[in-house]
Amino acid sequence: MRLADRYSKPQSSEMLKIFLATEKMDGVLNLGIGEPDFDTEHDIIDAAAAAGKNGFTHYPPTQGYIDTREAVCGYWKRHHALESAPEEVLLTSGGIQAPFLAMQALLNPGDEIILIEPYFTPYAVQADVCGASLIKLETKEENGFAPLACDLENAITPRTRVLVLNSPCNPTGRVVSRERMEEIAGIAERHDLFVLSDEIYESLVHRGKHISFATLPGMKERTLTMGGVSKSHCMTGWRMGYAIGPVELIRTMTAIAASQTYGLNTMTQKAAAYAITNHDAKLIERRSIFAERMNYVAGRLNKMKNVTCDNAEGAFYLFPNIKGIGIKCVNLVWKLLEDAHVATIPGTAFGSSGEGYIRIACTRSMEVLTQAMDRMEAFCEKL
Amino acid sequence: MRLADRYSKPQSSEMLKIFLATEKMDGVLNLGIGEPDFDTEHDIIDAAAAAGKNGFTHYPPTQGYIDTREAVCGYWKRHHALESAPEEVLLTSGGIQAPFLAMQALLNPGDEIILIEPYFTPYAVQADVCGASLIKLETKEENGFAPLACDLENAITPRTRVLVLNSPCNPTGRVVSRERMEEIAGIAERHDLFVLSDEIYESLVHRGKHISFATLPGMKERTLTMGGVSKSHCMTGWRMGYAIGPVELIRTMTAIAASQTYGLNTMTQKAAAYAITNHDAKLIERRSIFAERMNYVAGRLNKMKNVTCDNAEGAFYLFPNIKGIGIKCVNLVWKLLEDAHVATIPGTAFGSSGEGYIRIACTRSMEVLTQAMDRMEAFCEKL
Repeated sequence: MRLADRYSKPQSSEMLKIFLATEKMDGVLNLGIGEPDFDTEHDIIDAAAAAGKNGFTHYPPTQGYIDTREAVCGYWKRHHALESAPEEVLLTSGGIQAPFLAMQALLNPGDEIILIEPYFTPYAVQADVCGASLIKLETKEENGFAPLACDLENAITPRTRVLVLNSPCNPTGRVVSRERMEEIAGIAERHDLFVLSDEIYESLVHRGKHISFATLPGMKERTLTMGGVSKSHCMTGWRMGYAIGPVELIRTMTAIAASQTYGLNTMTQKAAAYAITNHDAKLIERRSIFAERMNYVAGRLNKMKNVTCDNAEGAFYLFPNIKGIGIKCVNLVWKLLEDAHVATIPGTAFGSSGEGYIRIACTRSMEVLTQAMDRMEAFCEKL
Repeated sequence: MRLADRYSKPQSSEMLKIFLATEKMDGVLNLGIGEPDFDTEHDIIDAAAAAGKNGFTHYPPTQGYIDTREAVCGYWKRHHALESAPEEVLLTSGGIQAPFLAMQALLNPGDEIILIEPYFTPYAVQADVCGASLIKLETKEENGFAPLACDLENAITPRTRVLVLNSPCNPTGRVVSRERMEEIAGIAERHDLFVLSDEIYESLVHRGKHISFATLPGMKERTLTMGGVSKSHCMTGWRMGYAIGPVELIRTMTAIAASQTYGLNTMTQKAAAYAITNHDAKLIERRSIFAERMNYVAGRLNKMKNVTCDNAEGAFYLFPNIKGIGIKCVNLVWKLLEDAHVATIPGTAFGSSGEGYIRIACTRSMEVLTQAMDRMEAFCEKL
């Protein structure tokens, strides 16, 4: 089998190896799972089935049904004061498709894109497929894993076109403050950068309110806001995301999608419109469940030998500092899996700034989390 | 808005312009629609909803659930004598995603890919995104729009890597004969070509039986068989396709999909497994409906002034020869739309070999088709 050069060497990420090892072991408490543990509510499934039985089983418009796009606009206006019109919205095949379409639309080969470490790995893969050059911007825990204005400014060259923001952040669970966002906005303006703002965790901000980057003065015309129903409405398996941005970009992304996936599942579109419009109370309920779990786990982690951890800030991730233990995070994760049967993700799976940290997803019940913390505490004690 | 160079000039295809004009006019009989007019059967929708309520609403494996992949293997063995194992199957986000993933996996920039004209346009767009060079192989009606061995052999250079086959063909509705396929297989072997065989219309062969290219001696290891439930099971809106091929290619395509769309809607996977396993009788029923319509329309077209058309062969498309009318097909299509309110697609929308032909999709009821043929007959008489 002669594959393209890019794929001719077998690649296996550390994260994948850990996933596979976890699957093969019995009795592992898996804190590596990046999705809500709640099933989709049944009334949302009913909405999908009803749409199907009403004949919505034929090709959808590539951009998405107008009513679903209107529901997206309504949601962002209601929750985050982001004003948008349906022609500024594209529904995508999974949240992950949005940055891929945007990068294709925006980047010429050799153009530079800035990723803030630690980052969600697919961004880097997507940028690479587009032939773009990656600029990985290291950050520090003491700055909330947000970039300092001076560091960001120094990283920019005349070829830099795009900056990817992700707040609340996977993997750190950190939320970028308004102050920092304003600094970033100023820099984006001065250097004519376009910002891909991945706000998939917008419904899970545990201190203060989510700030949608496009609502900052002057930012709407240079921002693509990316979201979806996966995390907010427990619909990861439905594979439905969306992007909100300037009409010309949305139109181009739609044209690109037309020959790559064509459009989003019709029943999913109708179900998502229903969920987005009718489930606001559920968002608050689930947010408080995740906050409670995260604060509990953070409290337990802080009592462990050589571990420190901030309280819940955003998403359902904690990113405890394990530097005091004195071994590399990837080795710690393997040891924790093999000795204590607790699965986590090494910080370096998200870029080299992640060294000294592990990602813990609080996507399991309090019972499981308690048991996992008991095991981890004993493990740290013994180390 | 500064877009990538590739997308900086607004592009509007003739096909899109015709679609938009059709939408704006009242009382148009639209014979341009490339999908079955039947809704998805309700028991398939029930299977989707039941799966959702059984908790299949979480991230699926990127490659697809094993039971759905097994159902695909069973279907192809039962209907087309193609032997395959689940690890050789990838479920895709729409049939259209399969060739895109395959081209990414197989083609280096500058590699050549052969498309047989007239062809389904997205292949060309996808190849272009991969940086591949297109070789468009012209064909003739008298050869059933299949390439002659000598023409194919002449088109090949040392950089040629991939050949795209599509039988039954969109737009011509033609089926490549076993003899021609064997010639192509010999050439693929001699020149070490990989064949992307788009067999999405496999359930709609109206003369003889569908031949799956991978079942030809020596072809399985150099063929990716691409299909889906869109046309066979009237599930276009579900956006579910699949690819069957060598494990190494499937594994690579799966890895690529992981950072572009991640995976296919879980309920769709379960519904498709149900449909593929339980709806064989429906396939025969619908095939005969399409054959009846196509033969009727072909009969009517042959009685029109300066028009000739073959009987039903495959898919639901007819590709009548309108050369006798003496005007370019695109002008004829516009005139037919404006004067007779019948929408069709010009042959040149599928490559320059399509000049002198129009595509008619028999995806409307006999009543609509009768009315459309009455209008078209009167239109041809007046020309």
